[in-house]
Amino acid sequence: KKRYNIALLPGDGIGPEVISVAKNVLQKAGFLQGLEFDFQEMPFGGAALDLVGVPLPEETSTAAKQSDAVLLGAIGGYKWDKNEKHLRPEMGLLHLRRDLKVFANLRPATVLPQLVDASTLKKEVAQGVDMMIVRELIGGIYFGEPRGITINENGEEVGVNTEIYAAHEIDRIARVAFETARKRRGKLCSVDKANVLDASILWRKRVTALASEYPDVELSHMYVDNAAMQLIRYPKQFDTIVTNNIFGDILSDEASMITGSIGMLPSASLGASGPGLFEPIHGSAPDIAGQDKANPLATILSAAMLLKYGLGEETAAKRIEDAVLDALNKGFRTGDIYSPGNKLVGCKEMGEEVLKSL
Amino acid sequence: KKRYNIALLPGDGIGPEVISVAKNVLQKAGFLQGLEFDFQEMPFGGAALDLVGVPLPEETSTAAKQSDAVLLGAIGGYKWDKNEKHLRPEMGLLHLRRDLKVFANLRPATVLPQLVDASTLKKEVAQGVDMMIVRELIGGIYFGEPRGITINENGEEVGVNTEIYAAHEIDRIARVAFETARKRRGKLCSVDKANVLDASILWRKRVTALASEYPDVELSHMYVDNAAMQLIRYPKQFDTIVTNNIFGDILSDEASMITGSIGMLPSASLGASGPGLFEPIHGSAPDIAGQDKANPLATILSAAMLLKYGLGEETAAKRIEDAVLDALNKGFRTGDIYSPGNKLVGCKEMGEEVLKSL
Ligand SMILES: CC(C)[C@H](C(=O)O)[C@@H](O)C(=O)O
Ligand SMILES: CC(C)[C@H](C(=O)O)[C@@H](O)C(=O)O
Repeated sequence: KKRYNIALLPGDGIGPEVISVAKNVLQKAGFLQGLEFDFQEMPFGGAALDLVGVPLPEETSTAAKQSDAVLLGAIGGYKWDKNEKHLRPEMGLLHLRRDLKVFANLRPATVLPQLVDASTLKKEVAQGVDMMIVRELIGGIYFGEPRGITINENGEEVGVNTEIYAAHEIDRIARVAFETARKRRGKLCSVDKANVLDASILWRKRVTALASEYPDVELSHMYVDNAAMQLIRYPKQFDTIVTNNIFGDILSDEASMITGSIGMLPSASLGASGPGLFEPIHGSAPDIAGQDKANPLATILSAAMLLKYGLGEETAAKRIEDAVLDALNKGFRTGDIYSPGNKLVGCKEMGEEVLKSL
Repeated sequence: KKRYNIALLPGDGIGPEVISVAKNVLQKAGFLQGLEFDFQEMPFGGAALDLVGVPLPEETSTAAKQSDAVLLGAIGGYKWDKNEKHLRPEMGLLHLRRDLKVFANLRPATVLPQLVDASTLKKEVAQGVDMMIVRELIGGIYFGEPRGITINENGEEVGVNTEIYAAHEIDRIARVAFETARKRRGKLCSVDKANVLDASILWRKRVTALASEYPDVELSHMYVDNAAMQLIRYPKQFDTIVTNNIFGDILSDEASMITGSIGMLPSASLGASGPGLFEPIHGSAPDIAGQDKANPLATILSAAMLLKYGLGEETAAKRIEDAVLDALNKGFRTGDIYSPGNKLVGCKEMGEEVLKSL
């Protein structure tokens, strides 16, 4: 029997609810496939701040690094919003990504036929959308030095951040993107701002140079402002998108909203080796926390990505994906994706239904 | 009789067509209001590159600086896309903005009832959208130093740009935004990434500090990734948005696509004093250039913004805005906004119709 160590980081808000449901689904899908999991639950984010005063305790980072894969709920909440920067839940997440060296963030944005009405886009525009955004996750302006707030020669405050990419950082994320596109519909769109930014000029140059190694992938380039438009105008034109950390942050959220169901969308963050980090793309939703209203499907689908991308257990992953579709086909809906004619359920009951469908 | 000097920069692609139409409209609206214009047409962008080898000739910059207002068509085209960075049309635009010190870029995104069907958003989501994006235009990562592509200690290429804002740069754009919101529905949303970027932390601090001087304006803050989502989820929540150069570039294009008619949207770029720069937000559309297919309304409405924000001639501006609505109400549509039941016209004919309606 194969055994895997899974670090569970429930975090804040609805995090604990959705993690507890996803854990059960992961366990059963694994069991059916002859896999066993040892789960280690660790404090993280605001929960860790309250407990030990830092958002990413040493022990949590170590447990994550020593695991086979990390499943994360959500972090953040009003409570810690006024904290100083280094004492905010978000900093814990940024440091965890860095510690795990997960440079490639894979964010699918898919419109399921069952949920096409949830999009604010017209049906004919939204239906059939199926793209993967590959976002660079541990470089660029998120981490570049120098950074900070200083005083200039006029005695005035100045805020500074540095957008910086070295060739190898671009190459490794581009390779993940080419490989991803190759397994999908073979189209890769690299998004940059090469008409203004030097970092983007290098980005475009490196991505273009790699294209010859992937002759089966059709590469195109698009400026980020145009990409923000095209995602709304005609989202079906996109298969795989690759972009830097900050553009990826913005565009992947935009793309997820196009699907209309961010309660459904998972993500995977992967490094060259070592454990990957898997989390729903939605936030901690403090206003509905603890009320059994959260949609656990994004976290359940993140568990599927964990199996597929993190452990290479594609069959078990497929079981979960199918079970989620089955529960949706039976008409079960949490509040965020509810439409008349379906059955409104809470977080736990949705979890039960997926378990039944497994 | 009041006389004004207007610098006309037709630029590339459809630029010359739309400028020639907008010039006539501006002239007639002025005439009806007792204003006279001296137009000086100057080479700019790719056209200037072909003519004299630089995208912003000295004479063009001087003429712009000495004018009372600048009306610009559009720049860029495939032809110059492979030029080195400093020999690209876009660089001319960035330098012109800098030379004119127009730090405040006002970009309205309005869904006209006549054109609500042009949006890819559902009618109930798109209708009634009426927002103004105030984008900082001559600072931040667009101009920050250090920048460039260098070789690091491993002999590897590294691309660098610097996001940098001094307190006074934030204050002056924030003031424009507060004043703008005050004249609109009194709601200002400042967009940043203060959970990650130091430059955004300073941005939020300065904007917040100014709020007490504008007690009639309701200030809120939003992260840029969330803003990219909210623009799609519920765009009507926004009145005035203020943000930095790069976020403004992305979000204003996203917002314009939400309206579904970027051929309709004007912009104004203003400094503390001196001439403003007025231009349609659409690009040079090389594929339809010279075919009399372009929609001149964005440039015509930019001429209206020129009258209102550039010269303080609000009545003449209103004449143009009303004439545009009248032409639309009569059913005239260029190809980009055409829907069955209306009258398809070209660029020139649309101009004639607006002239008739004046
Ligand atoms: C919480 C925040 C630091 C984070 C980011 O900007 O990366 C989030 O928006 C995300 O996209 O995962
Ligand atoms: C052409 C380009 C340099 C420009 C910008 O990025 O500012 C354009 O996208 C705009 O928004 O006016």
